[in-house]
Amino acid sequence: MDLLVVGIGELATPLGGRPLGGRAQGRLLILREAYVLVREGRIAAVGTGSPPRFEGPVLHCEGRCVTPGLVDPHTHAVFAGNRVQEFLARARGERYTGGGILTTVRATRAASEEELVQLAAPRLGRMLAQGVTTVEVKSGYGLTLADELKMLRAVRRLAEALPLTLVPTFMGAHAFPPEVPREEYVRLLVEEMLPAVAAEGLARFCDVFCDRGFYTVEEARRILEAARRLGLGLKVHADELAPVGAAELAAELRATSAEHLLHVSPEGIRALAEAGTVAVLLPGTAFLLEEPYPPARPLIEAGVPVALGTDFNPGSCPLASLPFAMSLAILKLKMSPEEVLTAATLNAAAALGLAQEVGSLEAGKKADLVVWDAATFAEIPYWMGQNLAWAVVKEGRVVLPAGGR
Amino acid sequence: MDLLVVGIGELATPLGGRPLGGRAQGRLLILREAYVLVREGRIAAVGTGSPPRFEGPVLHCEGRCVTPGLVDPHTHAVFAGNRVQEFLARARGERYTGGGILTTVRATRAASEEELVQLAAPRLGRMLAQGVTTVEVKSGYGLTLADELKMLRAVRRLAEALPLTLVPTFMGAHAFPPEVPREEYVRLLVEEMLPAVAAEGLARFCDVFCDRGFYTVEEARRILEAARRLGLGLKVHADELAPVGAAELAAELRATSAEHLLHVSPEGIRALAEAGTVAVLLPGTAFLLEEPYPPARPLIEAGVPVALGTDFNPGSCPLASLPFAMSLAILKLKMSPEEVLTAATLNAAAALGLAQEVGSLEAGKKADLVVWDAATFAEIPYWMGQNLAWAVVKEGRVVLPAGGR
Repeated sequence: MDLLVVGIGELATPLGGRPLGGRAQGRLLILREAYVLVREGRIAAVGTGSPPRFEGPVLHCEGRCVTPGLVDPHTHAVFAGNRVQEFLARARGERYTGGGILTTVRATRAASEEELVQLAAPRLGRMLAQGVTTVEVKSGYGLTLADELKMLRAVRRLAEALPLTLVPTFMGAHAFPPEVPREEYVRLLVEEMLPAVAAEGLARFCDVFCDRGFYTVEEARRILEAARRLGLGLKVHADELAPVGAAELAAELRATSAEHLLHVSPEGIRALAEAGTVAVLLPGTAFLLEEPYPPARPLIEAGVPVALGTDFNPGSCPLASLPFAMSLAILKLKMSPEEVLTAATLNAAAALGLAQEVGSLEAGKKADLVVWDAATFAEIPYWMGQNLAWAVVKEGRVVLPAGGR
Repeated sequence: MDLLVVGIGELATPLGGRPLGGRAQGRLLILREAYVLVREGRIAAVGTGSPPRFEGPVLHCEGRCVTPGLVDPHTHAVFAGNRVQEFLARARGERYTGGGILTTVRATRAASEEELVQLAAPRLGRMLAQGVTTVEVKSGYGLTLADELKMLRAVRRLAEALPLTLVPTFMGAHAFPPEVPREEYVRLLVEEMLPAVAAEGLARFCDVFCDRGFYTVEEARRILEAARRLGLGLKVHADELAPVGAAELAAELRATSAEHLLHVSPEGIRALAEAGTVAVLLPGTAFLLEEPYPPARPLIEAGVPVALGTDFNPGSCPLASLPFAMSLAILKLKMSPEEVLTAATLNAAAALGLAQEVGSLEAGKKADLVVWDAATFAEIPYWMGQNLAWAVVKEGRVVLPAGGR
């Protein structure tokens, strides 16, 4: 697709093909009166002043602000059923232990691949409508070979059907299935499930819930090393519930990302910085669980590139708005608007191994961008609870029409 | 407009033409396999089983949930400029004192009536897209006769242009203009501004910010009594910043509503219950200002009808989502989903003097309803940060098409 985007009042983007940590996370390119030229779905030029002569379709932004398409690097958006009752019980004071995951496992096992696709499509469509053009989706509500494959095949079908880049992550190690002894399940993960997922090319990453009450550091290491041998990238659900050393494990294995990190230790922060592992922070979950927020400032100051995600899932975080996570990052994580934009674009892309492809507005990258009904990017997290995405462009195609609500 | 709404999997509504307090607030009518018949913009029948024969347009909900159109009884949605810098400063730890109101006063004075209309229309359109069919809008960023009239005329023009019921409230007593001595401004409010507003029929209510640093109880009484003599309904911004006795004043004057109430005293709660004044709670503001949440449970248990609003404004609450306020009401105010639905529909309508017209799905009321992409009304506050409104019907007209995002 070719496209010329003109009349951009402010273009705001991080720059580069690598995750940005430390002070670099807060540095953006800001252009006034800018244009973006798209050729064959990729950015051909970004500039200011008079746009080049162009014969194809033109999107006029009428002075609005443009950013890269947002990237949500952590969701569990494919599932069946809901957990309204658990949500209400938590509101009445019950504590989250992660045990409710099995409620969703039962519902997801009972659903067909087609049903999972039908349930997830409108959810992903609503994310796209808010300016999210790349979404990671984890499996982990199947916990059998057949059901995990079913979830990942649903993700593949959704990726074919929707104008979104979906990044599939195998997370059979999300919980323990009640019907299989623990050691036996870890063996199944390593010897049967991971090879089957890799053989079918169904996942780009493998993630393990390494935490109190879930997988130990030793179990997680065994699973992740097996995944690496099969060519998968590595992610770790790390230290969400307690400081068990999961961040240190992520760093040791040179994982692409460590996620949650509410209880990461100072040693874990240092290790992540040295390893270059991206910290994926999920403030919506901390907000909903009334847990302490993850230590964004110590992470950034230690040089760890920080990304933001929604953690959208039916239990701990039925909150599916990445712009809202950006607001929480300012209000609760004390990040600057510049750091927040980098976190929700380039660093989130890096958490998915896609920093060379998306996450910034630069020649050569995919033409994924959002026109916001705002004058400046700092308004995106400021105007909360309204969808400011005025137009969404995916690989050069206007997938949501200008004037969207 | 005539319309037949069929295929409603669950219809959930409070009942009646008066605000509901105490246990009655938590009682809903729930119908399965229901229909709603609309004649000339009003509900002609609500039933279950086979719908009646009908020759006009049919909206098929395909098993989705239907509720009354939401009512937002407290917004400041007409203004110019933004307060991104104040938002960021507060995130860095600065405390809210209300002083920033004058920033918006300067911007709003500098804007024309036409500019105010152009700025507010997309905001109100985004509220409508989330299922809000009635919105109160307060003046109070003018603080001169001419500028207050300009704001209220903008509300009138918006009401003519948009498929929304807008309820205008005169709130010249929102702050003190810096250029006029305090006593002189109170005199102007009483002797010039209120009579001019009433003469032009521009407002249905008068509201006063009665709080620490704003209008005293004595000043508020004087202004509100003058408003009552002119035929306006009464509202009070009460005890948001400190327990100054504003709720007691609202009760004494038999005000329609007392709003905010973060610091209401036990005596204030008793007085509101005796007076039958609606408590309009605004949890988004408490969330954003990191203030204590208003005491919803003591209010409900004392028999005060509780309504929910957004308080949408560019300073203390740039959070414009009533569904999100409903989520906060469950998570932070410890209200039940049933109480929350009543609070955002019938009780909110009562806070605007419209409980006989909107706020429930019953024969005779305006046919304002929302079809949600959900099986049950409890999902509305549960699925957060996504717009679940699948179709919005205003006075029998489908104003946002089925399948909206």
